Amino acid sequence: MRAADVDRENDLFHSACLSIRRVVAIQVSVIGSGAENEERAEEVGRLLAERGATVVTGGLGEVMAAAARGAKSVGGTTIGILPGETRSEGNKWLDHVVVTGIGHGRNLAVVASGDAVIVVGGRYGTLAEIGFALTLGRPVVVLEPGLEVEGPRRARTPDEAVEVALAGSRNTLGT
Amino acid sequence: MRAADVDRENDLFHSACLSIRRVVAIQVSVIGSGAENEERAEEVGRLLAERGATVVTGGLGEVMAAAARGAKSVGGTTIGILPGETRSEGNKWLDHVVVTGIGHGRNLAVVASGDAVIVVGGRYGTLAEIGFALTLGRPVVVLEPGLEVEGPRRARTPDEAVEVALAGSRNTLGT
Amino acid sequence: MRAADVDRENDLFHSACLSIRRVVAIQVSVIGSGAENEERAEEVGRLLAERGATVVTGGLGEVMAAAARGAKSVGGTTIGILPGETRSEGNKWLDHVVVTGIGHGRNLAVVASGDAVIVVGGRYGTLAEIGFALTLGRPVVVLEPGLEVEGPRRARTPDEAVEVALAGSRNTLGT
Amino acid sequence: MRAADVDRENDLFHSACLSIRRVVAIQVSVIGSGAENEERAEEVGRLLAERGATVVTGGLGEVMAAAARGAKSVGGTTIGILPGETRSEGNKWLDHVVVTGIGHGRNLAVVASGDAVIVVGGRYGTLAEIGFALTLGRPVVVLEPGLEVEGPRRARTPDEAVEVALAGSRNTLGT
Repeated sequence: MRAADVDRENDLFHSACLSIRRVVAIQVSVIGSGAENEERAEEVGRLLAERGATVVTGGLGEVMAAAARGAKSVGGTTIGILPGETRSEGNKWLDHVVVTGIGHGRNLAVVASGDAVIVVGGRYGTLAEIGFALTLGRPVVVLEPGLEVEGPRRARTPDEAVEVALAGSRNTLGT
Repeated sequence: MRAADVDRENDLFHSACLSIRRVVAIQVSVIGSGAENEERAEEVGRLLAERGATVVTGGLGEVMAAAARGAKSVGGTTIGILPGETRSEGNKWLDHVVVTGIGHGRNLAVVASGDAVIVVGGRYGTLAEIGFALTLGRPVVVLEPGLEVEGPRRARTPDEAVEVALAGSRNTLGT
Repeated sequence: MRAADVDRENDLFHSACLSIRRVVAIQVSVIGSGAENEERAEEVGRLLAERGATVVTGGLGEVMAAAARGAKSVGGTTIGILPGETRSEGNKWLDHVVVTGIGHGRNLAVVASGDAVIVVGGRYGTLAEIGFALTLGRPVVVLEPGLEVEGPRRARTPDEAVEVALAGSRNTLGT
Repeated sequence: MRAADVDRENDLFHSACLSIRRVVAIQVSVIGSGAENEERAEEVGRLLAERGATVVTGGLGEVMAAAARGAKSVGGTTIGILPGETRSEGNKWLDHVVVTGIGHGRNLAVVASGDAVIVVGGRYGTLAEIGFALTLGRPVVVLEPGLEVEGPRRARTPDEAVEVALAGSRNTLGT
């Protein structure tokens, strides 16, 4: 791109940003793991972004990367909340990177930062996140087939999971 | 706005976002406190945003709010990393809200998420953040007059503080 | 007690401490909640102390207080890892108090500090702790009836729970 | 030792423990770093133990190990609050080990767990701890020569540092 084009892009971007600045974007956390769940996570990320929600994840690979990739594929916004001490460990689909330095302790921040939480696959770390999300009163939706645990709602498709999460988000935000 | 205008805005926004998606935005953390330092913090936030840096703060009042307000005044991007368990405690100039739930423990994440750190006023909490930033090797700049502590660089003006921070950021990012 | 008796007690205490100082005490975390589970938790705490294990808990009420109370009833040692910023919130059966200041984030420390974990009752916070314990490879035993979740072993009685936990501890400690 | 002697030791130990169970032990955190400060830290640890205070540290090497070693040399009690995920990284003078798993984030717990804090040497991590200790209102004493930072009291000798810390502890505990 020539410099003039960059400037024009930036102007468009800034005016677009300014026009939406007072709208609070809903944030939905997508948690889970397992390479076999990446396709479903990517669709969840894409659907969330198409509905205007910012996608929050733990910022690393598999489900976390797939959800962010899905969101970016349609121009959505992504936040990664990393366990380590440097942003270089984040996947490449993150717009904004939060470096916590507190290892697994960052799982609390991942779910607390979502107005709702969608679970795609996952194992023990995901269990900890579900426990925290329910403790904090966040709406949690498990995409079937998924972790068997009491508390969350269940959804049969990515579409349904996103629908339920967004409805729940409105309760969290009190709107 | 009519629905058609909203759609058009969104399209512009999306295409702008897509065009910049591969650019890694520099993130600079602005830390400190004290109502008497808000004016300087607001200028720091504004200057950072004008230079394309995302402004990261602890998300609450005084210096944190002022830095975010300054960034938003020119269409910049802001992230707030909150100590509590709900995003409602964040100030109203935050685009993206990270809810950590770990109280003062979030100070580590605030500075770790910056490729550089600018200090405006502040007291004991700020001291903890400076200690963490230096531990992690982040470039730290204290805007004069400011905390007397060994380690950080000093800057006489907001302009100089931003200049030094951005130069340091490039080292952190390895670019 | 007269001063001379206090001195004599202290001397006995010091010589006893010195004689055992090279023995690493096994630490077992007891987690869970629910007033209806206090009796079982107290027995678990007592049995652990009788077997020489230090009892680690989250330091607050219900199951946490009961487990510590049981341990102290037979002269055991107890550690409470508190979520808040002051030791005054700890129950009165704690020998040693760790004040974390990181709210629910302290759940990670509670289970990480156990060479094994025993679960008595509990709900969402306990779920988070189980998830973390399994993530870190700690042996986890759920006392029946208890949380239904995949991963932990199950025990029908406090005696069996303690037996399984102590056997698992030896693996964690590599002895 | 023969089994009978072990039993007798244990009986003595238990009765001694029971006799002191209602005394709340003062906890003092010793923070800092630098191999050149180990001798002074060891004396601080010893003096604290002789005065009946439990010594809390970050559980690793140098000043942390020396303070614990000093306390154990006179039969005192020590707690180590570790940054990693396993107790094996703790030094060998720890009676009780808290494994936090949150890296530098554990610095908050180290100072929050002290009714007072003594600083021996140290650098950036120590600065973070001093900042947190002052934020939480803990009395902080820097042993001269030491970090130059506003807020803490200064002591010229280990003896004076311990004296000042114990006096401050009584305020923290409200006794």
